Amino acid sequence: MLQLIFTNRILATRYYTTVVATTQIQKEVSKLLELKTQLSDENVGSKKHLLKTPKGTRDYNPEQMALRLSVMDKIVSIFKKHGAESIDTPIFELKDVLTGKYGEDSKLIYDLKDQGGEILALRYDLTVPFARYLAMNKITNIKRYHIAKVYRRDNPAMTKGRYREFCQCDFDIAGQYDPMLPDSECLRIIYETLKSLDLESFNIKVNHRCLLDGIFAACGVPQEKFRNICSSVDKLDKTPWEEVRKEMTGEKELKESVADRIGTYVSQNGGKNLIEELRKNEELMKQPSAVQGLDAMELLWKYCELYQISDKVTFDLSLARGLDYYTGVIFEAVLTGDNVGVGSIAGGGRYDNLVGMFDVKNRNVPCVGMSLGIERIFSVLEMSIANRGKKTRTTEVEVYVATAQKNLHEERIRILTELWEANIKAEQSYKKNPKLLVQLQHCEDHGIPLAIIIGEGELKRGEVTLRTVKSREETTVPRENLVEELKNRISSLELSAEY
Amino acid sequence: MLQLIFTNRILATRYYTTVVATTQIQKEVSKLLELKTQLSDENVGSKKHLLKTPKGTRDYNPEQMALRLSVMDKIVSIFKKHGAESIDTPIFELKDVLTGKYGEDSKLIYDLKDQGGEILALRYDLTVPFARYLAMNKITNIKRYHIAKVYRRDNPAMTKGRYREFCQCDFDIAGQYDPMLPDSECLRIIYETLKSLDLESFNIKVNHRCLLDGIFAACGVPQEKFRNICSSVDKLDKTPWEEVRKEMTGEKELKESVADRIGTYVSQNGGKNLIEELRKNEELMKQPSAVQGLDAMELLWKYCELYQISDKVTFDLSLARGLDYYTGVIFEAVLTGDNVGVGSIAGGGRYDNLVGMFDVKNRNVPCVGMSLGIERIFSVLEMSIANRGKKTRTTEVEVYVATAQKNLHEERIRILTELWEANIKAEQSYKKNPKLLVQLQHCEDHGIPLAIIIGEGELKRGEVTLRTVKSREETTVPRENLVEELKNRISSLELSAEY
Repeated sequence: MLQLIFTNRILATRYYTTVVATTQIQKEVSKLLELKTQLSDENVGSKKHLLKTPKGTRDYNPEQMALRLSVMDKIVSIFKKHGAESIDTPIFELKDVLTGKYGEDSKLIYDLKDQGGEILALRYDLTVPFARYLAMNKITNIKRYHIAKVYRRDNPAMTKGRYREFCQCDFDIAGQYDPMLPDSECLRIIYETLKSLDLESFNIKVNHRCLLDGIFAACGVPQEKFRNICSSVDKLDKTPWEEVRKEMTGEKELKESVADRIGTYVSQNGGKNLIEELRKNEELMKQPSAVQGLDAMELLWKYCELYQISDKVTFDLSLARGLDYYTGVIFEAVLTGDNVGVGSIAGGGRYDNLVGMFDVKNRNVPCVGMSLGIERIFSVLEMSIANRGKKTRTTEVEVYVATAQKNLHEERIRILTELWEANIKAEQSYKKNPKLLVQLQHCEDHGIPLAIIIGEGELKRGEVTLRTVKSREETTVPRENLVEELKNRISSLELSAEY
Repeated sequence: MLQLIFTNRILATRYYTTVVATTQIQKEVSKLLELKTQLSDENVGSKKHLLKTPKGTRDYNPEQMALRLSVMDKIVSIFKKHGAESIDTPIFELKDVLTGKYGEDSKLIYDLKDQGGEILALRYDLTVPFARYLAMNKITNIKRYHIAKVYRRDNPAMTKGRYREFCQCDFDIAGQYDPMLPDSECLRIIYETLKSLDLESFNIKVNHRCLLDGIFAACGVPQEKFRNICSSVDKLDKTPWEEVRKEMTGEKELKESVADRIGTYVSQNGGKNLIEELRKNEELMKQPSAVQGLDAMELLWKYCELYQISDKVTFDLSLARGLDYYTGVIFEAVLTGDNVGVGSIAGGGRYDNLVGMFDVKNRNVPCVGMSLGIERIFSVLEMSIANRGKKTRTTEVEVYVATAQKNLHEERIRILTELWEANIKAEQSYKKNPKLLVQLQHCEDHGIPLAIIIGEGELKRGEVTLRTVKSREETTVPRENLVEELKNRISSLELSAEY
């Protein structure tokens, strides 16, 4: 029976790898295999079912975690360079907190079972809990980052890197401040982050909700359709204009002439020149919100120049952002060059009215912030490491303590204790009498740079052998100088996270 | 109407602060206020309800987060010093994975709502997901740490620091190794961790499940009652022997003479001497599992001596640990001295059969590991900081860039860009023309050590003023040497997380 189950597991796996094939025979085979799998499932009990993570989620193995943690470290150090504090909120919120914040996407919220208490749901993003936190604690200004997991009951296309549980990495500035000062710093932070991750080829698109509103008004869009048409414009990064136009004139019932006028605007992008050009557009300049938007963009551009990032910024009229809550500048970073297909890897904008939705007196706290698409960044970096034929180190061990003969494990423990006391990262085999070859192989497999080898002869002479793992060079070191010698060696090593 | 709501909020708050009062009048007033609150709730809609986190959960503010992150950093650096890798698993598991692992406590599991997919539940600890991960990926050896939140639908006594969402901090070694080598390293790690957190007064109690079984057998406990009686012994850290005895002879139907014999054993603790003493006990030595347990304890003790931690370890026969899955050595660290009432702050043991519960062929992977009671550690450290009259810095800003007159904000941005490029942690006010006093006050409030002050005169002379915030000393620095001068100053500062 166990044999049969095991066979079925292999077949079941194979089934999932062949679904891409299209011939009729393969389809029939697949169906049969599926039936067989179901049959065996019924017979086996629950053990086999257990061996998976929930749909749309995954474990992270040590290689993945090593990369993720090092990337997060870099990002956090940039957030801290800009003086950010950190907060944390519970993974679930009262359902009411989330209701009415995400529009259509509310159906993707994970509810908790009512077990005779409050009605709870897993957080969908970090922005709404942040706004709830500000309102609840009556905080009127803060600069904070928050890196944590969020949950969306999406139908994940996992090959595209979309999961139901994924990490968000947010930085926001809340407070009543002067125009564009916090906003431009957010762009500077995106710039610094992507540079620090060696993602040099990128572009930050910027736009302004007021300008978009002005354009819609100038084109003759009825005001009640602004947000709706904004959603259509938002699709332009993935969808050609012709299809977006069809949506506007079709289900969104816009006049063809109005759609065409929108089309002439949203195809434009550039830099400072575009601002000047739009200033000359008399029809647009009749719209107060367009003037307001352009003034803001001009100031933003000036600050971007001062922050020396304007060469990476594009003023793009087709940028709209999906979320309803944005009220001012909006932005989105995309990779260019080799990684052009990856899509948006950072985005954000100003949302001045969200905190007020939680306040009894509707007191608002103006906010601007950004979210790094950290999962996409991980995928890009993982691929780049693989392409370079490198491996990520999963530990930081500097010294492996090995023995060349039997029954020397107590000496290993004595040395390890000394090394740990001296803050040297060190490990040993948990076997009493491991083979020397196995121990040295472990060092090579894990990129451990140094090994100490204890032998009976050396022990008598008060010495140990110090081996450089990569070059396989060995020298003898007096036992009493060991820690000092190791410290020197370690400080001169170029410790790399890859090998 | 808004006025009324606001008044009620104040009253409602006051209601919650007066519940401790006991006079009848106060009770009646409270009842009335509660009714009034309910009335206004019905009229107001949901806004007011939103302003809380779910029962048993809390937000962490920047002060709390700064402490938590610095403590976790220290702990992780110790785990890494011992060569640990990191893994991560989803926050929820298929419900079946958790079923049948926690005994009575299974009722505390948070279920997710069935929204037409899999039946899911939030993880209850990190150990069961770890075992599932090992079995699923057929991993036979790993040394890993995992710091993450877990969920228990407990009725939290929040003043005692028990929450429904809390952080666990686990280190485990899985693999078929030689006796006590991984086990003793776990104790060494607990030792190093508590030392590094300046929690010098602690004691690590150790015991062995086999020895306990041997004692129960020697005392005449029927074998089917071993685990059940073990649970009773486990209560001895909080409950006097007389009550535990009553439970044993009462609901657990043990003979009084048997309970009394158990009592003579579990009152014993000591070091190596206790091992020797128990060896002389002929009746106990007739039990093979007692001999096995004592052999293990003897070896463990030897390794503890070699690891130079035996002065912090106590062999304690009353230590039993609640969880069923332990199969060998068990341990628990408690604070002594000033923090004696805090309870257990680390615990763990060997569990050799848990992974097998997930494997189709019941293949086991022996494991030993420990969990730091990190929430209790935070509470102790928070109190200690408060007692010393210190504040925790919530940012790491090294330099604040201030202006002394109006319209110098562009110069601030230029300088900030230079500082950030040089990796100096720096910030400014987001107001165009902030008052100098407000800017300097911000530095003092946040423990920022250095400030640059830009004035019109200095600007013309190509200079800036550099101020040491604490001493309020000011010097003039040529603008072109600014970064160099700051780097020197910063490297000579003793940057502290407290001020």
